Amino acid sequence: MEYKYARRISSIKASEIRELLKLTEKPEVISFAGGLPAPELFPIEEIKAANNYVLEHNGGQALQYSTTEGYQPLRKWIAERMNSQLGTSFCDENIMITHGSQQALDLSGKVFLDEGDAVLCESPTYLAAISAFKSYGCKFVEVETDGEGMIISELEKALKAFPASKIIYIIPNFQNPTGRTWSLERRQQVADISAKYNVIVIEDNPYGELRYEGDFLTSVKSFDRTGNIVCTGTFSKIFCPGYRIGWIAGDKDVIQKYVLVKQGVDLQCNTIAQMVIAAYLEKYDIDAHINKIREVYRRRRDVAIDAISRYFPPDTKYTKPEGGLFLWVELNDRINTVKLLERCLEHDVAFVPGNSFFPNTNKSNTLRINFSNTQEGKIADGIARIGNVLKEFK
Amino acid sequence: MEYKYARRISSIKASEIRELLKLTEKPEVISFAGGLPAPELFPIEEIKAANNYVLEHNGGQALQYSTTEGYQPLRKWIAERMNSQLGTSFCDENIMITHGSQQALDLSGKVFLDEGDAVLCESPTYLAAISAFKSYGCKFVEVETDGEGMIISELEKALKAFPASKIIYIIPNFQNPTGRTWSLERRQQVADISAKYNVIVIEDNPYGELRYEGDFLTSVKSFDRTGNIVCTGTFSKIFCPGYRIGWIAGDKDVIQKYVLVKQGVDLQCNTIAQMVIAAYLEKYDIDAHINKIREVYRRRRDVAIDAISRYFPPDTKYTKPEGGLFLWVELNDRINTVKLLERCLEHDVAFVPGNSFFPNTNKSNTLRINFSNTQEGKIADGIARIGNVLKEFK
Repeated sequence: MEYKYARRISSIKASEIRELLKLTEKPEVISFAGGLPAPELFPIEEIKAANNYVLEHNGGQALQYSTTEGYQPLRKWIAERMNSQLGTSFCDENIMITHGSQQALDLSGKVFLDEGDAVLCESPTYLAAISAFKSYGCKFVEVETDGEGMIISELEKALKAFPASKIIYIIPNFQNPTGRTWSLERRQQVADISAKYNVIVIEDNPYGELRYEGDFLTSVKSFDRTGNIVCTGTFSKIFCPGYRIGWIAGDKDVIQKYVLVKQGVDLQCNTIAQMVIAAYLEKYDIDAHINKIREVYRRRRDVAIDAISRYFPPDTKYTKPEGGLFLWVELNDRINTVKLLERCLEHDVAFVPGNSFFPNTNKSNTLRINFSNTQEGKIADGIARIGNVLKEFK
Repeated sequence: MEYKYARRISSIKASEIRELLKLTEKPEVISFAGGLPAPELFPIEEIKAANNYVLEHNGGQALQYSTTEGYQPLRKWIAERMNSQLGTSFCDENIMITHGSQQALDLSGKVFLDEGDAVLCESPTYLAAISAFKSYGCKFVEVETDGEGMIISELEKALKAFPASKIIYIIPNFQNPTGRTWSLERRQQVADISAKYNVIVIEDNPYGELRYEGDFLTSVKSFDRTGNIVCTGTFSKIFCPGYRIGWIAGDKDVIQKYVLVKQGVDLQCNTIAQMVIAAYLEKYDIDAHINKIREVYRRRRDVAIDAISRYFPPDTKYTKPEGGLFLWVELNDRINTVKLLERCLEHDVAFVPGNSFFPNTNKSNTLRINFSNTQEGKIADGIARIGNVLKEFK
């Protein structure tokens, strides 16, 4: 059967990360692939209690259809949390609940992108943001990025070269895949640039709460004077990903467009999931819970960095992220990390080759390490296995 | 601020149904608008038990990321249910879990529709399917429809007139908004036509299980010889809509395209929701539950039909659906049902004016009545109020 698919289908490829997840399901594999939080930290008992509470008190409402915008008490909590942590000035009407921040990215494409528009992104950038935006027929412009964020002169050069630029997509805190964090100065500068060129900034912030050292920085949105900056967030990393609850935050008229689009896409998010999270936030201390996660991930990061410094070749470059789930490794130019992965899988250890994080360019000597989902005692062993395979690649 | 939205945004309007839902939230309003199931029938206790079971036995898995395809035991149950009820021959690999059948429609647009393609639909058709498909820049061709389904000669005429026809969209059981059901002969004929013209059929079936009289009919898919027919389904009407769990079913290579598209859209559906539904289906008797729903809705339908025959003007035409949630009313040509609704809201009764169910034409003397979400004792009162207002429109 010759199916007549839409043209966009030819540009959509299987996610390398998710295909890899299938390979690494065997329990003997030490996987630094994926971006999974540690399931042993999920507050299972508290979720059970919150769920029972919601079903006992509001079962009919929790299982029924509800509004596209989302559950009002949860939206209010999110607005207040962002205001206190990120220097924004949101209220519930600035927030729409989404199926994880992944849906916030997809809907952003649907709200803003026409075929041929350009998305300006960090280089490298989040793999699944590339897939989400690409399905709207955009092209990508990689903007040179250093340890403080996009290089602003390069960003401005790109905006002049591509008048069809619609979106600047950035992850200012503990970026995926590099783990890098933007400086305060660059945050202000990108906000200014977005106003000057009337371009939307999507400030993706799935990891911001997971800081292990240094001071929390205010958001790019806190420097917004025009309403051009839209923020995403998620409960996946500070609570659990299984509920698929995230959000998009922005000026009210922009959020109203997201609401219209989401109505046609899937009507609304899971009612009971939103109410259970709201009940959890009311009954329990999420800050204490996040502190517990921070402690565990900080130690895992430290062990990973220490092991890389010991087991990887001396010419290896790697980031030392102040938070988040990932660090980024740049090996000697001669090494192709897809080939490295193939050999590593034979030794039951996995990571994500870096190439897929570059929409246009080729950096085949890079790789991403996720340190949040491997028990502390196994991290050094896993890194040592990769180090051993690397000896073959001399 | 002048935002540079995508072109598609200008064609997306607020859903009249959802705006109305806001007006009808006051408890004194008798609302025949919306398409809500009766919350008093939700199996709250059983859901609580299933949820506790899943969290106690598999909490870590239930709260973690999982596959885009969906939870395998649930997909297997759906395949077997469809095979026994609808005459299909599916296995788990033919099924992908979606956020309600609404997402199945949206993803169908993303998989198949390019700008300028045509969607052939019943006249009238499901409002939110129009929004879902329209966002992909398609045009609609309304095919004349009678009590047995689309008139096949008209369908074939439309296919010849519009070579860019990509999708035939139909709801063969208890259609939204009319409540009508396709005859077996028409089902076979539309399957033949889809093969002859190599056009996809989307067989949307949210209400099929809710039959109150007559025999269950086999699906259009059961007559498929080429793989051109894709089916949707949902737990919203037989279990509850709050979990947002539905599905798309089709040939494996088609479903693989849906999986790729869903990865970029939102990664996956709520893990725990899928596992809770699977646990419910294993532990409890869903057929007994569906029978209970059928009993209640059948009585509500009967009361609604009886009240219309008594309180509406003698020249009123209306359907007598064999199942589902809706019936369809055609009033005297002179009556505009949007104006009627405005006056009815002053008398605390609501319905959906029929015009929005026609993508192209104007039928301003029609309206849709939902009978599932109003207690039996209030239905006659509500219909009588509309009947009273109608006296002003002589």
